[in-house]
Amino acid sequence: MRAQTTEYARPEALPYKNPALCVEERVNDLLSRMTTEEKIGQLLCPLGWEMYEKQGGDVWPSAAFKRMIAEKKVGMLWAVFRADPWTKKTLSNGLNPELAAKAANTLQRYAIENSRLGIPLFLAEEAPHGHMAIGTTVFPSGIGQASTWNPALLERMGAAISKEIRLQGGHISYGPVIDISRDPRWSRVEESFGEDPVLSARLAAAISKGNGGGQLKKEYSTITTLKHFIAYGIPEGGHNGNSAIVGKRELHEVFLPPFKSAIDAGALSVMTAYNSIDGVPCTSNKELLTGILHREWNFKGFTVSDLISIDGLMENHSVAATLTDAAALAMNAGVEVDLGANAFAQLKEAVENRQVTIATLDTAVYRVLKLKFEMGLFDNPYVDPQRARRNVRSPEHIALARSIAQESIVLLKNKDDILPLAKNLKVAVIGPNADNRYNMLGDYTAPQDEGNIKTVLDGIRSKLKSSQIEYVKGCSIRDTLNTTIEEAVEAVKRSDVAIVVVGGSSARDFKTDYLETGAAVASSQTLSDMESGEGFDRATLHLLGQQLELLKKVKNTGKPVIVIHIQGRPLNMNWADEHADALLTAWYPGQEGGNAIADVLFGDYNPAGRLPVSVPRHEGQLPVYYNKKSPRGHDYIEMSATPLYPFGYGLSYTRFEYATIKAVQKGKDRFEISFRLKNEGQRSGDEVVQLYVRDEVASVVQPVKQLKDFKRIHLLPGEEKMVTFLLTANDLSIIDNHFDSVVEPGMFTVMVGSSSADLKLTTQIEVK
Amino acid sequence: MRAQTTEYARPEALPYKNPALCVEERVNDLLSRMTTEEKIGQLLCPLGWEMYEKQGGDVWPSAAFKRMIAEKKVGMLWAVFRADPWTKKTLSNGLNPELAAKAANTLQRYAIENSRLGIPLFLAEEAPHGHMAIGTTVFPSGIGQASTWNPALLERMGAAISKEIRLQGGHISYGPVIDISRDPRWSRVEESFGEDPVLSARLAAAISKGNGGGQLKKEYSTITTLKHFIAYGIPEGGHNGNSAIVGKRELHEVFLPPFKSAIDAGALSVMTAYNSIDGVPCTSNKELLTGILHREWNFKGFTVSDLISIDGLMENHSVAATLTDAAALAMNAGVEVDLGANAFAQLKEAVENRQVTIATLDTAVYRVLKLKFEMGLFDNPYVDPQRARRNVRSPEHIALARSIAQESIVLLKNKDDILPLAKNLKVAVIGPNADNRYNMLGDYTAPQDEGNIKTVLDGIRSKLKSSQIEYVKGCSIRDTLNTTIEEAVEAVKRSDVAIVVVGGSSARDFKTDYLETGAAVASSQTLSDMESGEGFDRATLHLLGQQLELLKKVKNTGKPVIVIHIQGRPLNMNWADEHADALLTAWYPGQEGGNAIADVLFGDYNPAGRLPVSVPRHEGQLPVYYNKKSPRGHDYIEMSATPLYPFGYGLSYTRFEYATIKAVQKGKDRFEISFRLKNEGQRSGDEVVQLYVRDEVASVVQPVKQLKDFKRIHLLPGEEKMVTFLLTANDLSIIDNHFDSVVEPGMFTVMVGSSSADLKLTTQIEVK
Repeated sequence: MRAQTTEYARPEALPYKNPALCVEERVNDLLSRMTTEEKIGQLLCPLGWEMYEKQGGDVWPSAAFKRMIAEKKVGMLWAVFRADPWTKKTLSNGLNPELAAKAANTLQRYAIENSRLGIPLFLAEEAPHGHMAIGTTVFPSGIGQASTWNPALLERMGAAISKEIRLQGGHISYGPVIDISRDPRWSRVEESFGEDPVLSARLAAAISKGNGGGQLKKEYSTITTLKHFIAYGIPEGGHNGNSAIVGKRELHEVFLPPFKSAIDAGALSVMTAYNSIDGVPCTSNKELLTGILHREWNFKGFTVSDLISIDGLMENHSVAATLTDAAALAMNAGVEVDLGANAFAQLKEAVENRQVTIATLDTAVYRVLKLKFEMGLFDNPYVDPQRARRNVRSPEHIALARSIAQESIVLLKNKDDILPLAKNLKVAVIGPNADNRYNMLGDYTAPQDEGNIKTVLDGIRSKLKSSQIEYVKGCSIRDTLNTTIEEAVEAVKRSDVAIVVVGGSSARDFKTDYLETGAAVASSQTLSDMESGEGFDRATLHLLGQQLELLKKVKNTGKPVIVIHIQGRPLNMNWADEHADALLTAWYPGQEGGNAIADVLFGDYNPAGRLPVSVPRHEGQLPVYYNKKSPRGHDYIEMSATPLYPFGYGLSYTRFEYATIKAVQKGKDRFEISFRLKNEGQRSGDEVVQLYVRDEVASVVQPVKQLKDFKRIHLLPGEEKMVTFLLTANDLSIIDNHFDSVVEPGMFTVMVGSSSADLKLTTQIEVK
Repeated sequence: MRAQTTEYARPEALPYKNPALCVEERVNDLLSRMTTEEKIGQLLCPLGWEMYEKQGGDVWPSAAFKRMIAEKKVGMLWAVFRADPWTKKTLSNGLNPELAAKAANTLQRYAIENSRLGIPLFLAEEAPHGHMAIGTTVFPSGIGQASTWNPALLERMGAAISKEIRLQGGHISYGPVIDISRDPRWSRVEESFGEDPVLSARLAAAISKGNGGGQLKKEYSTITTLKHFIAYGIPEGGHNGNSAIVGKRELHEVFLPPFKSAIDAGALSVMTAYNSIDGVPCTSNKELLTGILHREWNFKGFTVSDLISIDGLMENHSVAATLTDAAALAMNAGVEVDLGANAFAQLKEAVENRQVTIATLDTAVYRVLKLKFEMGLFDNPYVDPQRARRNVRSPEHIALARSIAQESIVLLKNKDDILPLAKNLKVAVIGPNADNRYNMLGDYTAPQDEGNIKTVLDGIRSKLKSSQIEYVKGCSIRDTLNTTIEEAVEAVKRSDVAIVVVGGSSARDFKTDYLETGAAVASSQTLSDMESGEGFDRATLHLLGQQLELLKKVKNTGKPVIVIHIQGRPLNMNWADEHADALLTAWYPGQEGGNAIADVLFGDYNPAGRLPVSVPRHEGQLPVYYNKKSPRGHDYIEMSATPLYPFGYGLSYTRFEYATIKAVQKGKDRFEISFRLKNEGQRSGDEVVQLYVRDEVASVVQPVKQLKDFKRIHLLPGEEKMVTFLLTANDLSIIDNHFDSVVEPGMFTVMVGSSSADLKLTTQIEVK
C-alpha cells in the first residue's frame, strides 16, 4: 500500500506525466504500465447521471461512482450532466452550469486520486443542438439547422456548444447526427440534416470545425462524435434501429461522404449505429470500421458503440451467443469504446479466451489515451465553476440561437404576399404548438427554466400590444378529449388574421417507456403530444388529433390563415398548401424559436430557409427524395410521384433573378460556373443558390440530379452579385463498377436555381 | 442465284441438317457456315403480331415479316399470337388456336425457305397464367397460383400451358414470373408468387418441370422463360421498373434462389429485368448474368432482355451513349437475345468496332441454335392446325383451371361459420367484380369469348335457381359517377345474405397509354376499372371509387355480408376484417374463377388457400413481409407493425389439430421433423402445413423466421396423418460473411403450423 502512495506522491517522475514529452511517448509509457483491467477501463463509458450526489451548492462522487472506479477502472462517463425523464433528473434535483462544473471536478479529482496511474476521465455529453444539460443554450434541431443551408453559421453554433461543454468540464460532444434520412416515418429525422449527402457533409464539417476542428489543445475544443455509422437514417419500414437496406455503391455515394467530410474537418469520434446492413450489424462491421474508417480514411480518433449496441449483437441481431462473444466481435471489428459498458466489461474474459489479442486492446486504448493527452487532461483536468456560471448560455449564444432559428425557417406558401403582417393587426394565435415550451425544443433536450424558452405566442407578444392578441389553444397534438376549437374559432372571428401553430412534438414525459436498448418505444397508453423523437416512429404523416379539424374550422371563418408547422418530420401539408394563405415550417426551432418566428411573421427577418428534405404528399409515396437514380419513377394511379414541396425549396419576401450562366474550364476536371444574381424586390434578403449536376452518361446509373454546391447570399434591394462555383474532380467523380472513384469523360449538365425543382439556368460542361 | 437454290435443294447433304448427328456437331457446323449478319439475326426477337396477315381461314406472312427475314435474318419472334389493346388484335381481327397454328406454319415455312441456311424460327409467347392468345385456357394469375401452395397442381398447369403453346406452333413460354414481391404498390404483384423465396422456388420449379423440365425433345415441351432477373419485385417507391435497393447477401438469400431452383428443374431461358441494382442495370450486369447464371450455375439455356431493356441502358439508365454501346454492354454482360430487336440490330457495328468479339457473338448464337436443334425444329418445324383446334382449351384444361382457382381461394374470415352458405338462401350478388369477365383474368390475358369466362354471378347461377338471386353492380372499381348503391341496398334488403365482390382490376382498355419501354403507364384521364397490371402502380391500398361506401351501406341493412376480393394485390381489408361476416380473396382467379368461388361459397369445395403475401393494415407500414431480419420492428405511434393477415394465413371449413412434434437427426446436417395432423372437424379438407426455422445465433443476421418446407394435405373428417419433413444442409445454411453458403453449428428453432403467425408446435435441433 505504501508503494502505491509513493507513486501517487511523485507523479512527475513518470514519463507519461511529463508535459514536456510528446504525446506518443507519454501514451506509450502509460500503456506499458497498465494492467489489462486498467486498459479495459479506458474503453468503458457507462451512464453518468448517477455518478454524483448533490446537496445545496455542493456535489460529490456517489457510491456508485466510487465502485465503478474501484471495480471497473472506468475511464469515461456518458451524460453526467444529462437531465430528462429517463434520467429522472429535473430542474430541482439536477445540476446547473456551475454545479455541473463542480460535478466534473469532483469526479475528475476522485478518478485521478483513486486510481493507480491517475488517469483523468473523459466526460462525453449529448450535444446535437446544444449541450443536453440544464441551463445551456438550446439551438434548433438538426433538421432546422440544415434548413439554414449556412455552414458558417453552424460553425459558430459548434463553437458555442463546445464552449458550453468545456466550461462545465465535459470533453466529448455527441453530435452532429449526420444520418442521411429518406424516411419521414422514422422518429429521428428531426435530428438529421435531411436527405442530401452534400448538404449534410458541408454542415457536418462546419460543426466539426466549430467544435475545434480536432485541435484539442485549443480552448473549448471538444471531440466531435459523429452519429451514426452508418445508414441509420433509412431503417426498413421507418422502424428506428431496423436494418438498413442499401447497396454498397450507394453507401459510398450517399451515406459515407458526410462522415468523411466531418472527419477531414477534425471530428475525432464516430458512433456506430444500431442497425445492420445486409446482415452485418454496424457495430460488428469490420469492413466499415476497420477497412474504411481506420485504414482507408486514416481516422485518428476512436469509435464508440451506440448505447448498448454491442449487447445488441447478442440481444437484437443474434450474431453473438454471449456478451463476451459480442464484445470480442465488436472490438475485433474496430469498436474502441463501449457506450453502456456492459459488454466490454467482458473483455478480460475475451482476452483470456484469446478471442481478443492484447495488441488489439492496446490499439483501442492508445486511441483513447492519446486524445486525453492531446486535450491536456493529464496536465490540467479541472474547470472553473464560476466561469461556467457566467459564460454558459451567454447573451451571445442566445443571440446565435435566434439567428439560427431565423435562418432555419422555411416559407412554403405566401399567397398574395400576405406575409409579412403589419404590426397593427389584431391576431388570433391558435393551436397546440402556439404556446408549448417543450414542443419548441425537439428530442435530446434537458429541462430548462420557463423563461428561457420563447414560444410563438411569446414572440408575437414582443411585437404587438397585448390588446392585439388573443390566444386559444384549440386542441392538443394527439389528445382529442379536451379541445377548445369553438373558442378558437370565436377568437379568430374577432381578429384580422389567424396564426395557427400545429405540427408535432418530441416532448417526452415521465410516462414514456424505454426499451432496454436505450431507445424509447412508443407507449400506446399515452396521449401526450409526443409523436416524434427517438423511438416514436409513425406509419402516417397526417396531423394527429384534431389539428386538421381545427385548421378547417378556422378557415371557415373566412379570415386569412397563417399556418405554422412546428415539427420533427415533414408532416402532411396538403391541406395548408391548398387552403392556407401562408405556410411555413420552423421544425423544432429551439429556445429562441418563438422570437424568430415572430421576426418572420412581422417582417423583422426575411426568411430564406430551404427544405433539406422533400415533403411528401402521402406516406404511400415513400421514399420521396430528389436525387433518385434514373429513371424517374412514373406517377401512381392516385397521385403524382413528385413531393408536395421539393428538396431545396423555400420562399422569400423578395424576388431574385438569375442570369448569364457561364462555364469556364480551369484545368483538368475543374470548371468555374458563374452567373449573375439580382435582388429584384423591395426588401433585402438571402437567396440560397443551389448548383445541381447531372452526369449525362456514366458507367453506372447516376441520380437524375445531384446537389454539388450552394451558397446563402445576402442582397440588398436591387443589388446584384456575380456568383461563382468551382466544380472539381470530387464533384464530377462517380463510384464505378470497380468501386473506384473516377471522373469519366463526357457531358455533364450543370443547373443552378433556387430549389431542386426550380432550376433557373442550365449549361453543359464536357470532361475530355 | 442458282448456287443458292442448289443448296436449298439438297439440304440433307449439310451436316447441320443431318438428324443423325449429335446436337453439338450440328450447331458447330451451322455456326461455321453463318455470316455475322445471320448470327446476329438469331439473337433478335422482334414483336410478332404484325408478322402475319389473316383473311377468313387463311394466314400468310406479312410484308413486314418478309422484310424482317430479308433484312435482319431474324431467328425469333415474340408474341405472334398475342391479342390485347396494345397489339390491337381483337376477337375479330386476331387468331384462334387453329389459325395460330396456321400462322406459325406459314411464318416458319417462309423463314426456312427464304433464308440461306434454312434455320427455323423460335416463337416465344407470353404464358404466365395460360398462353396469352385467343381461345386458350386462362388460369389464375401468379399470386393466385401461389396461394394454392400446391406444386404438383402447378406442374400440371405448366404442362397444360406448354401443350397449348406447342399445339399452336409456339416454342418458348414466358413465365413464370418469380419476382419476390414486397411492395403491394407495385403493379405486377399479381403476376408474382409473393414474398417468400422458398414458396416461389418450389412453385417455379414445378412449373418448369410441367413445361417439360428442359427435355425439349419431349412432346409439348416449351422453353421456360423465368422473369425477371432480378429483384424486379422491389422497385423503389413501388414504381414499376425503378431501381431495386437490396444488398448483395439478401440478393443471394432471397431473390436468386427461385431462379436457381427453376433452372435446376429445367428452365432454359432467363429474362433480364428493367431495373438497376445499386447503379448497375440488370440488363448489363455481368456479375449476375455471366458470373452467377452462366458460370456459377452452369446455366445451359439463353438469356433474353425484357422488351427493349437493352435500349433502356441508353434511354433510361444512361449507362450507354448510343444504341450500339448499349448492345455491346448487354452482350458482353451476358445477354444473348434482344427482345425488341432494336439494340442487337446494332451488333454488326459493335463487332466491327471491336466492342464485341466474334467469340462472344458465337457463344450467344450457339446457345440459341442448340435449343432449336434440341427441340427438333430443324427436322420437324410444323404443327397440325386441326390438332390445335381440338386440343387447346380442352375440357381437361378447363377442369384444371377450376381446380387451381378453387385451391387459390383464401378464406380470411368466417364469423360464426357463416360459410358455406345453404343452397336454399336468397342471395344478393353485389359489387363491381361480381359480374365483370375481364376483371376476373388479370394482366397478360388475351380477349376471350364471353362464354369462356365465368364470373361470380355465373358461378352462383350454376348453384341456385335464378329466383334466389338478385344482382346489382352498385359501383365501379374506380369510376364514381354511375353508381347504383341504393338499388344494391334494396336488393340486399330483399335477400338473406349479401355477397359483395369488390377489389381491383387489371383489365386494359384501348384508352391506355403505353410507354416506349412497353410497360404501360397510368393515364390520369381514364376512369376505367384498371388499377393494377403492368405500370398501374398505386400509392395507396384502399378500395378505390365508392366500394367502401357500398360495403358500408350494404352492412347497414343488417343482413350478413360476405365480402370477396377479386384483386391483383393485397388491398386494404381493414373494414371487412372488422365488419364483414366472411371475407375471402380469390385474386384474379381466371376463366373458372366464378365457378370456383361459388364452389367455396356453397360448400362444394372446402377452401385451403394461403396468403403468399402479407396483407398490410396501411400503406404506411410498407414493406410488410414476414421474414424480415432481426430485430423485429416495434409498433408505430398509430398502429401495430404487424400485417392485418400474415403470410401463410388462410382458414378452412374444418379444424386441424397438430400434435407430438419430433426431431430426429438423420445424418450430418439432416433432421427429420415429424408430427401428427388430425382433421377434427366434420368436413374433409386440406391443411397447408408450414415449417419455419429460426437460426438462433448465426454469424450474419438472420430472419426472425423463414419458411423451409410445406405440404398441402387432404384429410377426411377425423382422419389423422403423420407428417414428415426433412431438413437438410440446404435448409440450414446461411450466406456468411465471405458470401459462402455454410451450415454453422448451433441451435435452430423449428416451428410448424398453419401460418407464419400461427405456429402450433415448436422444437429445437442442434447442428454440432
